[in-house]
Amino acid sequence: MSKITIALDVMGGDNAPTEQVIGAGKFTKEVENCKVVLVGDESEIKKILDKNPHNASQIEILHTSEFIGNDDSPKEAIRSKPKASILLAADLVGKKEADAVVSSGNTGAVILACAKKVPRIPGVSRTALSAIYPTQNKLNRKDSLALMLDVGANIHCDAEELFQFALMGSAYSTSIQKVKEPLVGLLNMGSESHKGNDSMVNAHRILSESPNINFYGNIEGNNLMQGIVDVVVCEGIIGNIALKSVEGVAEVAKNLTKQAFKERLIWKMGIALLSGGIKQLKNATDFAEYGGAPILGFSGICIKAHGRSGNRAIKNALKVAAQAVQDKVCDKIEEKLEA
Amino acid sequence: MSKITIALDVMGGDNAPTEQVIGAGKFTKEVENCKVVLVGDESEIKKILDKNPHNASQIEILHTSEFIGNDDSPKEAIRSKPKASILLAADLVGKKEADAVVSSGNTGAVILACAKKVPRIPGVSRTALSAIYPTQNKLNRKDSLALMLDVGANIHCDAEELFQFALMGSAYSTSIQKVKEPLVGLLNMGSESHKGNDSMVNAHRILSESPNINFYGNIEGNNLMQGIVDVVVCEGIIGNIALKSVEGVAEVAKNLTKQAFKERLIWKMGIALLSGGIKQLKNATDFAEYGGAPILGFSGICIKAHGRSGNRAIKNALKVAAQAVQDKVCDKIEEKLEA
Repeated sequence: MSKITIALDVMGGDNAPTEQVIGAGKFTKEVENCKVVLVGDESEIKKILDKNPHNASQIEILHTSEFIGNDDSPKEAIRSKPKASILLAADLVGKKEADAVVSSGNTGAVILACAKKVPRIPGVSRTALSAIYPTQNKLNRKDSLALMLDVGANIHCDAEELFQFALMGSAYSTSIQKVKEPLVGLLNMGSESHKGNDSMVNAHRILSESPNINFYGNIEGNNLMQGIVDVVVCEGIIGNIALKSVEGVAEVAKNLTKQAFKERLIWKMGIALLSGGIKQLKNATDFAEYGGAPILGFSGICIKAHGRSGNRAIKNALKVAAQAVQDKVCDKIEEKLEA
Repeated sequence: MSKITIALDVMGGDNAPTEQVIGAGKFTKEVENCKVVLVGDESEIKKILDKNPHNASQIEILHTSEFIGNDDSPKEAIRSKPKASILLAADLVGKKEADAVVSSGNTGAVILACAKKVPRIPGVSRTALSAIYPTQNKLNRKDSLALMLDVGANIHCDAEELFQFALMGSAYSTSIQKVKEPLVGLLNMGSESHKGNDSMVNAHRILSESPNINFYGNIEGNNLMQGIVDVVVCEGIIGNIALKSVEGVAEVAKNLTKQAFKERLIWKMGIALLSGGIKQLKNATDFAEYGGAPILGFSGICIKAHGRSGNRAIKNALKVAAQAVQDKVCDKIEEKLEA
């Protein structure tokens, strides 16, 4: 295997660049034969590297002082900051000087930067932002995550595009989640094939007829967390709202627990006894373990890590990127599209 | 106030007709000046009434032996069973012999039966199925529920229809939730006014400009449970998937708790100490308290109670229906639409 090169946008994310650089350093200590190009402020990067473990022979720095913040308008920032770290990092992939780009920065800016710099895989109509989430099976320690796409790169999608999402999601799931024939579900408002809008009805038919997709059928909102499928396909607007709705419940539950258990000593004692179980749940739902989710459809691996990523999440995002490169996920998507 | 008449479809729901008849009996013992017409199998109804407390002077029976089950296809059943209990109950409202209809039966059939028998309020383009759900504020015992519509009566909705949903939801919220100027949010994939599809962008503009709506702006999936608005408007397909996604998380959490706490004695002890808190959470999220959610836009009150309703839920659904009739919710919607 030839050396894998990953471009890391160290300036994007809530904890940038410290956690990004530390994560990259840890990655080089754990994974051989992979080079990481740290894109960002050189003097800051060097300061952090000096204080933290890393394998210098696997690290390069590409200096830039421009970056796009979380509060910047993606469209405007991409136009007005041509040397922003995410644009330079994506450009390395576009020029084939890197195999993958990883960023925990502004989601809209990451998508636009990749769209500007990295060509799409031939035949792909639209790229899709995916999310990886734990299901009930995962929480039962069967290690079953699910991949959902699109969760917001697009608004409306037609049937053919939903079908392409299914192909791309299956290829990625096979590589990263190690599911041989991933089961694909179409997120809809009912289980029957005639449910939903025209895109969904037609997508159901195309998916049912395709020999290249292991199609489960329609799934509903309440099936998402059950883990009955490996890949969930949906229009961007629906995926975005469903995913955030699920995250919202978890946030509220956390707040309520905190509050309720401040109030009563007997509840505090209960919580203390439960702490093992709670930690186990917390681990299972900890995004840092999964490291990031792909934006699929580009002719290079593009991984969006969570904005709150710490160094462990960044390290895992780099691992996920290396795995996807090694498994030639982009080639596999192209093959599936041609089939 | 003249006497209020409510038609109750006693044959629809998982526990029909027993819980329906018992709930109606309890309602007549608690609420004066309201008549309930029990629509269903007369001999069964009489048997249940004989054994349970009720105020006979407030009860009438309209016999039919036909009913629509949960597994029936709504469209087909509405056509092939013209004397189904839900059709006769809705017809009483259509003929103005009843002010409201309540059913815990097959949701699709309830919507279609009302559409067939009850005229829409003049000016209403589409009726909307709503859902009532508890928010974080409610769980903090500030008693703040939220009303969400549409959750599946329609697929796509245009901007004008979303605006009408906001007007109808506000009128209902003022009556039942006792919120003077309900805050309305538009469920979308981002907070900015340009986000979402054309319907949403245009609806945002119309809602912002309307003096008759207390408009918060766009809300996202993770805001749903926070209770920052009183009324959430959205397209049917999006409301349906978001609502079920939220319900799905709650189900999974329940299953996991059950399972985890079977495993370890120390966790069992923790759960025992927490039981007060858990019960409190359970009460706050108990649909039986709210009694049912309206299908809005008809010129009579149509309340869909949960399929799993027991007698307390049915009693509360009847109370909610009586309250909406007394507050002239349909007239208020008509006034708002004309304004």
